[in-house]
Amino acid sequence: MKNSIKILILLFSTVGIFSCNKQQDKNNEGQSGALASNAAERVYVAPGEYDEFYAFISGGFSGQLSVYGLPSGRLLKVIPVFSQDPEKAWGYNEETKPMLETSHGFIPWDDAHHPDISQTNGKLDGRWVFINGNNTPRIAKIDLTTFETTEIIEIPNSAGNHSSSFVTENTEYVVAGTRFSVPIPQRDMPIKDYKGNFKGALSFLSVDPESGRMDLKFQIIMPGFDYDLSHPGRGKSHGWFFFSTYNSEEANSLLEVNASQNDKDFIAAINWKKIEEYVNNGGGKKVPAKYAHNIYDDETHTATSTMENEVTVVDPTEVPGAIYLLPTPKSPHGCDVNPTGEYIVGNGKLSADLTVHSFSKMINAIENKKFDGEAYGIPILRFEDVLAGTVKQAGLGPLHTEFDDKGNAYTSFFISSEVVKWKVETQEVIDRQPCYYSVGHVMIPGGNSAHPFGKYVLAMNKITKDRYLPTGPEVTQSAQLYDITGEKMQLLLDFPTIGEPHYAAGIPADIVRENSRKIFKLSENKHKYATISNGDARVERDGNEVHIYMTMIRSHFTPDNIEGVKVGDKVYFHVTNHEQDYDVPHGIAMIGANNSELLIMPGQTETFVWEPKEVGVWPFYCTDFCSALHQEMQGYVRVSPKDSNVPISWSLGE
Amino acid sequence: MKNSIKILILLFSTVGIFSCNKQQDKNNEGQSGALASNAAERVYVAPGEYDEFYAFISGGFSGQLSVYGLPSGRLLKVIPVFSQDPEKAWGYNEETKPMLETSHGFIPWDDAHHPDISQTNGKLDGRWVFINGNNTPRIAKIDLTTFETTEIIEIPNSAGNHSSSFVTENTEYVVAGTRFSVPIPQRDMPIKDYKGNFKGALSFLSVDPESGRMDLKFQIIMPGFDYDLSHPGRGKSHGWFFFSTYNSEEANSLLEVNASQNDKDFIAAINWKKIEEYVNNGGGKKVPAKYAHNIYDDETHTATSTMENEVTVVDPTEVPGAIYLLPTPKSPHGCDVNPTGEYIVGNGKLSADLTVHSFSKMINAIENKKFDGEAYGIPILRFEDVLAGTVKQAGLGPLHTEFDDKGNAYTSFFISSEVVKWKVETQEVIDRQPCYYSVGHVMIPGGNSAHPFGKYVLAMNKITKDRYLPTGPEVTQSAQLYDITGEKMQLLLDFPTIGEPHYAAGIPADIVRENSRKIFKLSENKHKYATISNGDARVERDGNEVHIYMTMIRSHFTPDNIEGVKVGDKVYFHVTNHEQDYDVPHGIAMIGANNSELLIMPGQTETFVWEPKEVGVWPFYCTDFCSALHQEMQGYVRVSPKDSNVPISWSLGE
Repeated sequence: MKNSIKILILLFSTVGIFSCNKQQDKNNEGQSGALASNAAERVYVAPGEYDEFYAFISGGFSGQLSVYGLPSGRLLKVIPVFSQDPEKAWGYNEETKPMLETSHGFIPWDDAHHPDISQTNGKLDGRWVFINGNNTPRIAKIDLTTFETTEIIEIPNSAGNHSSSFVTENTEYVVAGTRFSVPIPQRDMPIKDYKGNFKGALSFLSVDPESGRMDLKFQIIMPGFDYDLSHPGRGKSHGWFFFSTYNSEEANSLLEVNASQNDKDFIAAINWKKIEEYVNNGGGKKVPAKYAHNIYDDETHTATSTMENEVTVVDPTEVPGAIYLLPTPKSPHGCDVNPTGEYIVGNGKLSADLTVHSFSKMINAIENKKFDGEAYGIPILRFEDVLAGTVKQAGLGPLHTEFDDKGNAYTSFFISSEVVKWKVETQEVIDRQPCYYSVGHVMIPGGNSAHPFGKYVLAMNKITKDRYLPTGPEVTQSAQLYDITGEKMQLLLDFPTIGEPHYAAGIPADIVRENSRKIFKLSENKHKYATISNGDARVERDGNEVHIYMTMIRSHFTPDNIEGVKVGDKVYFHVTNHEQDYDVPHGIAMIGANNSELLIMPGQTETFVWEPKEVGVWPFYCTDFCSALHQEMQGYVRVSPKDSNVPISWSLGE
Repeated sequence: MKNSIKILILLFSTVGIFSCNKQQDKNNEGQSGALASNAAERVYVAPGEYDEFYAFISGGFSGQLSVYGLPSGRLLKVIPVFSQDPEKAWGYNEETKPMLETSHGFIPWDDAHHPDISQTNGKLDGRWVFINGNNTPRIAKIDLTTFETTEIIEIPNSAGNHSSSFVTENTEYVVAGTRFSVPIPQRDMPIKDYKGNFKGALSFLSVDPESGRMDLKFQIIMPGFDYDLSHPGRGKSHGWFFFSTYNSEEANSLLEVNASQNDKDFIAAINWKKIEEYVNNGGGKKVPAKYAHNIYDDETHTATSTMENEVTVVDPTEVPGAIYLLPTPKSPHGCDVNPTGEYIVGNGKLSADLTVHSFSKMINAIENKKFDGEAYGIPILRFEDVLAGTVKQAGLGPLHTEFDDKGNAYTSFFISSEVVKWKVETQEVIDRQPCYYSVGHVMIPGGNSAHPFGKYVLAMNKITKDRYLPTGPEVTQSAQLYDITGEKMQLLLDFPTIGEPHYAAGIPADIVRENSRKIFKLSENKHKYATISNGDARVERDGNEVHIYMTMIRSHFTPDNIEGVKVGDKVYFHVTNHEQDYDVPHGIAMIGANNSELLIMPGQTETFVWEPKEVGVWPFYCTDFCSALHQEMQGYVRVSPKDSNVPISWSLGE
């Protein structure tokens, strides 16, 4: 047994070698002659024309969410979410620093994995994108009118928030499942006592249908497995949620060997409607838990962070009939539900086959109490009783499956580096196309909803060693776009990505485009330090704090000459952009500030802090080229010694 | 006079309106039917094929340098330079934090403007890219074997390091010219006393021909103008450097009006060979100056920051014959020298004409002492005596000029949003093409050397309001690629960019590609905390510091279970990547760490610090999908109370 695992590991370690051989097949990529020209035209979006789809591609270890256009593969914006971004002052200015607060204090980074777009009646509605922070467990919400992160909520009792952040078909809930089990509550205990003592929390966050406000409704305290991925039921299975697990061995060291022992792990099926009812009727237990809830307000242009101190936890054994375990071969990774809600696909990453479970069969087995034992009080269903079928020998290392609107599924195979198309009803393989190289997730716009848009599948790959011009030891990761309108998939385009293109959510541009905001109205700016009229521009001293109420408009600051600041002061620049036209941001930066610039949109106010360390006359300037007289948009601050009596004064053009 | 300036400002402020009208001309963009297909094919780089050129596009207010492929416009890498980057741990890990140290302390951001590639004999040699930090004056050097920033040197006595970082034809020097004049040395004085008291420093940094090490050789203390851009002489004018100036009025407030009064400002011509000789012979004055010099060592994978304390300053009046002022209409921005070195083009941004100066005429005028007064002791040449000719009424708001290898110049016009092609010898306009919208710099690969590669010109634009799918109030900036192989330019492609695509340096890929490193050799790793053999992996306590000597290889950490850490400890994770294959980085992140992940290349060691705040058992994991068993690449650290006596211990697989 041990030996066979070693061979397996050797196999996985040599994925680079596998992949390299692929390049010899370049002539098979279908890119020469007329075919290449055809592909070129199909991905070319001529200057001034628009892409057909938005693709929100997570940055993985970048912590951000990138917005691409498809089919061109052009990067339209990097939305800062969990990581500091000096370009946009995210996590640097006074307004957004609260967004990165957690129960562990301020954290400048996270690992953002699975974006999911809000739905109404199983259709993408284009209101919000949710995305998980994997390292310090959090869920963020991005508003698709502003394309900004407006809410981040921390998940307590969790560690490695991986099986997240997928939404139910009316966005009733967004879920967060722990990847690593931990002591709940956290306590000082030997690691070797993991088994039976560490637990895995699955968290359900309700989403307010109007405001989108998230609330941690309840956590289910599950056995100490690793919870890998999840997807909601839909249509007939609406009301259920499915989570894949690995490490049902409950190993705590060398998991590459020790968590690969069992022939089958599980998919956990959660009847969240039953648990919701249980909790609404007073079920569950309120326990202490510290977690941050951060909200950015579009009217004040300012975020607040609130520390919550309690969460409702649910013991699965106290809600009989709510949770079942479906045996699934070997360390299932993806856990994907087809558009009708009947099929749950478990991608056993150490298996060559794909397991397809049937929701109807599962319900039947539950009703007939066909159990095959239990795990910590949770009934285990019999594999044969829930199995719809198996996709046989489809490839090596299956990871994820998405669906089109014609009854087909598309599964990524990491080790054999390919996307395989198969018929959901019959589990029959229809086509396979190589990926360059080592594909993780695949994405079809709407492919996780009841209504996919089956025009393209996007493969997100981990390795690119010889696919692009080299850039030293660190090379880009990459996405590949395939046309799936025909029987056979056709590779159209390679495009490099920001960070790790971990997963993506796609949506037809028309659903989002019209709602995109162009400016913030100055008259509606409720920022505490906004300067709405130039007459109110001023400088005020309050002890050793100096507050500068400044405005900016093409091409000057008001005021632009300031005196009376002293070494040791804490100088707050509160700057309001008075422009009211689309696409006229201004920036501001101060020499020697231990901070980033501000990049301020029309009608918005932002604040940075400067602590001058030396006397002198120090310039500031506009950092965003705003007009032909942009270079003239500048000013000076005079800094006097600590004991100086130079009075505060300010001016413009005098 | 005042009224006409107000009209001018109004005109510049309405650039958005100008630009918007352009979209009605879309049918004229030549993108329909066969032409569009032609453009599509010419920018399409089929999957697995390589781009022809590297384009190093500065991020402007992002502070970084982006690497694009041309003609595809695909983003291959964002190289962190002046700004923190949580994705790559730049400015977060212990190894790179020293790179962002300055005399003002640690600064997480800057404004990166003008990349320039090193040259040998006036040809791009592809060894290094230099780029300026504009806000807190610095020059950085990027090594093109690793595509990493390996040196940053601060520029004292400077503010707004804009006319930087251009190199001479053998990379003898890289220059840095102050944009804002300031008191030199800095002192507490009224801002209104600017005129005559504030000064502008032009800095010359020598570059070691072998190591590339920079050294601040001397600073010329010039009159209190704003020094905007600069370019080296080449060929016949090698030994000279040219700097454009504005605000020769020496205004200190409302510069959009007050610095636009003079009909002509100047281009300063600096005979740096003469000044070098003067300094080598003991000329100049050593004065105290605090500035950081930060160097990243590829063998230790670690940066050091040294505070320098002295600089040689040169008074222009003490080196007669070294510096002259060439009158140039109105607030010249770009200051560009053609490949032969004969012509210096001054782009007067408030002028409709372009001024072309002649180097030969300048030398002749100097020899014949045809002076027209002086400014602070620096001789002013007569406009008519140095003028080669004028490009008449070429457009509105000329900014920058680059050159091809056929005697043509390409000038950007910000206000009329176009690129204009003209013949250098005759100043005759040959073609004009619209930009969408408000173009700043243009770039031709090698266009600032004696040997340009005149296949494409890249326009870098400031406004894109309706060119791409919208992304809320903040929209991307953009580059546009034109084919310039024919008499007429042809627009091929719009592609969005990271940050502000301020300026770029392009180079044929072949010059760089073969030298690109694939891995760091583990056997050559001289990091102080490297763990070269797994047997040396260990955990050591030193007071309240805990040092973890850890290794990573597919797919486990050694060790992966650690006990004996206590609340209040400062835990250093020193992690060495034992892979020796190309494109197999690993990452590591720890829940709740107030730090970023590490992304560690094969053979490299990096360090992050974790200060655990609560008892418990906390997981860490690999953040870069590395194998089919990547999800299993994890570990736990047990944190005990401050007064605990749990001993330090570590293990793997036990």
